[in-house]
Amino acid sequence: MEKPGEFEIIEKYFAPLSGRGSFALKDDAAELVPASGNSIVITQDAISENVHFFGDDPPQLIARKALRTNLSDLAAKGAKPLCFSLALGLGIGWDETWVSEFARGLAEDCDQYDILLSGGDTFQTGAGFVISICAIGETSTGSYVSRLGAKAGDLLYVTGSIGDGALGLLARQGRLSGLDPDQIGNLKSRYLLPEPRVEMSGLLRKYATAAMDVSDGFVGDVEKLMAASGVAVNMKASDIPFSNAVQAAIRLESKFLDTAITGGDDYEILFSVKPANKARLEEAAAGLPFPVTQISVIETGNSTTVFDNDGVVMEFGSTSYNHSDT
Amino acid sequence: MEKPGEFEIIEKYFAPLSGRGSFALKDDAAELVPASGNSIVITQDAISENVHFFGDDPPQLIARKALRTNLSDLAAKGAKPLCFSLALGLGIGWDETWVSEFARGLAEDCDQYDILLSGGDTFQTGAGFVISICAIGETSTGSYVSRLGAKAGDLLYVTGSIGDGALGLLARQGRLSGLDPDQIGNLKSRYLLPEPRVEMSGLLRKYATAAMDVSDGFVGDVEKLMAASGVAVNMKASDIPFSNAVQAAIRLESKFLDTAITGGDDYEILFSVKPANKARLEEAAAGLPFPVTQISVIETGNSTTVFDNDGVVMEFGSTSYNHSDT
Repeated sequence: MEKPGEFEIIEKYFAPLSGRGSFALKDDAAELVPASGNSIVITQDAISENVHFFGDDPPQLIARKALRTNLSDLAAKGAKPLCFSLALGLGIGWDETWVSEFARGLAEDCDQYDILLSGGDTFQTGAGFVISICAIGETSTGSYVSRLGAKAGDLLYVTGSIGDGALGLLARQGRLSGLDPDQIGNLKSRYLLPEPRVEMSGLLRKYATAAMDVSDGFVGDVEKLMAASGVAVNMKASDIPFSNAVQAAIRLESKFLDTAITGGDDYEILFSVKPANKARLEEAAAGLPFPVTQISVIETGNSTTVFDNDGVVMEFGSTSYNHSDT
Repeated sequence: MEKPGEFEIIEKYFAPLSGRGSFALKDDAAELVPASGNSIVITQDAISENVHFFGDDPPQLIARKALRTNLSDLAAKGAKPLCFSLALGLGIGWDETWVSEFARGLAEDCDQYDILLSGGDTFQTGAGFVISICAIGETSTGSYVSRLGAKAGDLLYVTGSIGDGALGLLARQGRLSGLDPDQIGNLKSRYLLPEPRVEMSGLLRKYATAAMDVSDGFVGDVEKLMAASGVAVNMKASDIPFSNAVQAAIRLESKFLDTAITGGDDYEILFSVKPANKARLEEAAAGLPFPVTQISVIETGNSTTVFDNDGVVMEFGSTSYNHSDT
């Protein structure tokens, strides 16, 4: 089958995902008119074959993962998604079916998350697939939630559960056994398809003193928030929320606790709240489709410490997954 | 030498290029507050090793080319650069020196073009280098210049000269001989380092009925502008502006005319102007550091035709360089 050209791919598969201001992707750029009094929030996450996904992962899931990692960042900043720009680097093995499935996955998520494709670029890498998405959101000026505002005394919360993505990767690689098939399935799907916590953005704008996306390993991300805000925290591992599958894996092999809290791919949101807002936050969060769990209280200082179930300080080889490590 | 990690690279080399709203690249995103009454203009261009550049090209030039291709798109839309997001896919052969040189090239252009780094992502591709930049500009709402507004009777202009990039690529590959070393040097440097026509953006906002960046091959790009606006054009090859080096190459081998006008990598701006504005445009353009040349008058219809020096219609294998062709 002859492969379609760049412009045919854009017209046939990507133009239908665009909207007003994008000129059906026939222009060099897109125009966006932000609502008066609003700021633009810009984030970019790239994923690369054999680093962030496997070449034989379903193309729809690769597309959705690429978009969702960006939606997770926007949500953590309290921003509403507006549009995204896609640089699609086609790997050697691409064909029209791959592109069509990839676009189908993107289309589903554009609908689900109410975001439009503004444009981008399609090219060949000569090697593996690389997908780079720059997502743009909007928030009322003054309500952007950075990592810098946490104060001693604030309560530290996290959404959802930690470690499913990291153990899902192990399951995907056949390196996790002893769990029942449902649990294995749950972990794999958390790795393949993150669930960005977009429902949090309103509550973060209202109550969070600082927030960030948890994606590079929970402990390392807590360290980053503490460092950015100039504060400290002591946590018990038993206060970190884990799914049943992750709990079962840790019971089977205690080393999986380390994997779960440093392995990355969580796409949860870590945030801090003033104690005076605890009741209001928790009441509002009770209506969300995922748990929101207080894990500690922030202190003065400049350290992040995790205690295991025996009250011993945990030591980690690395507190986060560093994609540039060699 | 041990290679630095992702966060070390960002802190050491890229944070110095960021500005207000980017939190020294320590946050998940950046916040941009557009001036009241302004629209945001978003564009994205990616470049990939062995497709758009060579692995042994100087890293500063790769960085500057990646940024400048985006600045060319913003200029063609009449937009002022604001910030850009960088997804840097490190190839297998990267080391700290490469990153440091790459960042130095970016820094030079950030200064030259008054644009800030808003954030992005650094990752390893496991193969060649891939650089994807999403650039964000600003224009007063209502003055965005699309490809759609050209009308029959409008005059068609192009900036600078056509074909230097395409022949520069041949020179770089050692496939161009018979020119003097100065001419070869000029062509190579046009290929390696585009000169985005940022000085045009004000005049385009004022006078252009349609405009686009010429980067994928001149004839194919003219076809795209005509198709987007629903108009036609007849051009003489002799009316297309060529540098002395390109003219000399065509004199040596007439096939280089085809290469020059379909080969791509020009980063010039093609635009249309109402006849009533001809004098005002040309007077203002006379002060620019590059020529602005009228090449034809737009007509009704839906075709793009180029006549050679003998008045014969030129036929092309492909009118543009299609990066997804296989």
